[in-house]
Amino acid sequence: MSNSMDTAAVLAAFDEIARRRDWQSLHTPKNLAMALSVEVAELCRHFQWRDDGEVERMLQAGEAGSVEVESVAAELADIQMYLLKLAAVMDIDLDKALADKIAENRRRF
Amino acid sequence: MSNSMDTAAVLAAFDEIARRRDWQSLHTPKNLAMALSVEVAELCRHFQWRDDGEVERMLQAGEAGSVEVESVAAELADIQMYLLKLAAVMDIDLDKALADKIAENRRRF
Amino acid sequence: MSNSMDTAAVLAAFDEIARRRDWQSLHTPKNLAMALSVEVAELCRHFQWRDDGEVERMLQAGEAGSVEVESVAAELADIQMYLLKLAAVMDIDLDKALADKIAENRRRF
Amino acid sequence: MSNSMDTAAVLAAFDEIARRRDWQSLHTPKNLAMALSVEVAELCRHFQWRDDGEVERMLQAGEAGSVEVESVAAELADIQMYLLKLAAVMDIDLDKALADKIAENRRRF
Repeated sequence: MSNSMDTAAVLAAFDEIARRRDWQSLHTPKNLAMALSVEVAELCRHFQWRDDGEVERMLQAGEAGSVEVESVAAELADIQMYLLKLAAVMDIDLDKALADKIAENRRRF
Repeated sequence: MSNSMDTAAVLAAFDEIARRRDWQSLHTPKNLAMALSVEVAELCRHFQWRDDGEVERMLQAGEAGSVEVESVAAELADIQMYLLKLAAVMDIDLDKALADKIAENRRRF
Repeated sequence: MSNSMDTAAVLAAFDEIARRRDWQSLHTPKNLAMALSVEVAELCRHFQWRDDGEVERMLQAGEAGSVEVESVAAELADIQMYLLKLAAVMDIDLDKALADKIAENRRRF
Repeated sequence: MSNSMDTAAVLAAFDEIARRRDWQSLHTPKNLAMALSVEVAELCRHFQWRDDGEVERMLQAGEAGSVEVESVAAELADIQMYLLKLAAVMDIDLDKALADKIAENRRRF
């Protein structure tokens, strides 16, 4: 993975699709938070009946496992996009929030 | 918000705390996915009994509202950190996953 | 809806299927809790992009809406089953837990 | 646990508190679904960093573990109440939904 994420580009692409489909009015903070929880649960679906060893094997598997890993990757992407959009509509500076959390964690721990 | 996120720095800080507390063994994909769902629900707590207008007012409020907005910001930061860590432990290239999702969305829509 | 739920019968049916498929070992508290969160998010999927008025119309709709209402009903059933199973494997008396919660709520409110 | 749950009584108690606090208008299907997801995540909080063995020990522990088990029991009660209320406001017969799901599972498996 690269060292930085082009968040502006991700957000721009998200908004571009939203405009094409006229979805902007749906993207309220409440709806986005709910969508985030749905996507995270989609992710959990891959793990709910597996123990850590089985998850490990699923990740290592070549051909057979890669379709599922692709699916997990797609869900992580959805979570990332909704997270960036949610921060944007709430006017929350995510970088600052991260810096504050990191500083707080360093103090606590 | 800036145009890019220093994801390597966020991950490094996350791992630094994990090392201090000896938490590395807890950070399995399954546990991280579960933690993600817990953090997202912490976020939803702020919205569950509010309608969109009340959420808007909560975000606009000066003094009284800002403590809650700070709390939401902290939760977004937690979600972001768990997401990056989950991608890392699963060896998933999040940038590539985002690029693929964006390309797919452009095709579908 | 009736006044009482035959919880023993629901649990027995759940366990019967689990035995047929040899799923008993999967039903650990942690896995069941994760499955519960997945089912609840399946439910949220029906609401995430709708406002309360649209949800109301979805519920009122005759032909067109009933397939979706059936789907919601199925998800509620799944949530109920996982909840009863989770209480059972954790040896938690759900009736007592409910009575305690109701008593506490009456005191608080 | 008993063989049946007095669901009418649970619902009546839930509504009684809602009336005392004037919360009825908050109990829309969407809000209740969101509240359900928050409660389920509260539950998951107890499991997220534990493996199955540690969960087992937490459940077996006498003094030390019982406060936490009480907490889990309270969360299961909350989930149950929100589930019953959600079925009620959506006019969904939960007993029928359970019977249908059980019949379908028997066919599939």
